[in-house]
Amino acid sequence: MDQIAYVNGSFVPLAEAKVSILDRGFLFADGIYEVAAVLDGRLVDNASHLARLKRSVGEISLALPETLERIAEIQKELVARNQLVNGMIYLEVTRGADKGRDFAFPKGTTPTLIMFTTVKDIVNAPSAKAGIGVITVPDIRWSRRDIKSVALLAQVLAKQAAAEAGAGEAWMIEDGKVTEGGSSSAFILTRDDVLVTRQNGSEILPGCTRKAVVALAEERQLRVEERAFSVEEALAAKEAFITSATLFVQPVISIDGKTIANGKPGPMTNRLREIYVDFARATAV
Amino acid sequence: MDQIAYVNGSFVPLAEAKVSILDRGFLFADGIYEVAAVLDGRLVDNASHLARLKRSVGEISLALPETLERIAEIQKELVARNQLVNGMIYLEVTRGADKGRDFAFPKGTTPTLIMFTTVKDIVNAPSAKAGIGVITVPDIRWSRRDIKSVALLAQVLAKQAAAEAGAGEAWMIEDGKVTEGGSSSAFILTRDDVLVTRQNGSEILPGCTRKAVVALAEERQLRVEERAFSVEEALAAKEAFITSATLFVQPVISIDGKTIANGKPGPMTNRLREIYVDFARATAV
Repeated sequence: MDQIAYVNGSFVPLAEAKVSILDRGFLFADGIYEVAAVLDGRLVDNASHLARLKRSVGEISLALPETLERIAEIQKELVARNQLVNGMIYLEVTRGADKGRDFAFPKGTTPTLIMFTTVKDIVNAPSAKAGIGVITVPDIRWSRRDIKSVALLAQVLAKQAAAEAGAGEAWMIEDGKVTEGGSSSAFILTRDDVLVTRQNGSEILPGCTRKAVVALAEERQLRVEERAFSVEEALAAKEAFITSATLFVQPVISIDGKTIANGKPGPMTNRLREIYVDFARATAV
Repeated sequence: MDQIAYVNGSFVPLAEAKVSILDRGFLFADGIYEVAAVLDGRLVDNASHLARLKRSVGEISLALPETLERIAEIQKELVARNQLVNGMIYLEVTRGADKGRDFAFPKGTTPTLIMFTTVKDIVNAPSAKAGIGVITVPDIRWSRRDIKSVALLAQVLAKQAAAEAGAGEAWMIEDGKVTEGGSSSAFILTRDDVLVTRQNGSEILPGCTRKAVVALAEERQLRVEERAFSVEEALAAKEAFITSATLFVQPVISIDGKTIANGKPGPMTNRLREIYVDFARATAV
């Protein structure tokens, strides 16, 4: 079956899914995106993703071309048309294609909305069992990382460096502290059994999975501190992991080649992953 | 006549000039661009733009899909096909469209190359006679501004703020000093008749027009200092101006509503503009 994508009101074969070269997403990275996991054909934590979408577009004064309710309907229709069981759905909204190329916002231009899906067995990903190594790189991004924009070149370079080093993720470092991963939130479990992840702010993206994991941990009486931590603190921790919409909870077993604890996924990480998978299945729509 | 664009080997009507929604320029801002002015149907300072293109793609390990010589041929053919007399030609190279969406570089993907032209009477632009006001905004960009990438959302927001304030450009401020304009280089002429513009480095884009103006000024025995300057110094200056490929030399007459000198374009600025226009005409190919 040909994969189907959504482009501005139409469901089309992915190979024919195109945007104008004048689209401001292509010319200026003037766009916002979201990725939601799909489990058993249903969208995971999607209300959280759509709320963040609304916030991001608001921060750059970009009007959504459809209501959030309609966007959710389109997501579901695209999942159904692709008969997608497990994977993810990507959506991007841009400020559309103007007649030419001016930096300032165009007037009267309809925003672009596109979506596509990808097959992935997130729950049974081998890396979730084995854990991953991360490398560290300087955080060279702009200062509005709370906006989920498509201006992702710094993250591309960070994750390429990780791939070249045989690592699964790059942790970005600023002022001696970890901000977050190239496309994930960073957590550690200290020797005192405190779960630590950086507080939200303009320095990091407010992760939807991060938020859910913090809430699930707190519901289970785990002590959570939202604050920055250093690589040294992470290396001295009992456990470390990352979270993202398409990884859920993934163990981190080394940083720049130095192992954390015994170099194996930690029991609390594994437990939080199970808890998150249960949450995802139970709440997917 | 329908405007013609170039997309990956084909000359097509602009309305049909499209790229895949999986293009990494659209998904990740994983692309580099250049804009060259066209005067009397010829390309201005194009060798400088193509040299910068080569440098930028090298910095992100992106292979050009065509040689620089072939790119120049395509530029010229597109100008001819559009019967463009005065205006500009935009080109963008991205890491192409992969089968899905992974941050790390895809393997075996052909880079995307697109171009389009725009009509503009740069030499006779009214703003060059009247001068423009600029506003100041914090420089919130990433730390590799020497790479001319399409990750331009910060510049879009800066120039939108300028437009809303009725100004012609936004000067970005970092550590109390002007880095550059949203899409231009910033110059002042001090009371001692020294031309000051920020030195190149990762803090700013190495402007092609900036470079040419510095060389032209030095050839005429004008003293040039390449160093950072503050807004206070600019407000105390004799003259100020910006340079860019599609503005040439443009007088700045106020900053955040405060006039510079008598609030009119300065004689040295006007002279440098004339000198640049002569250089552009004489060297265009």
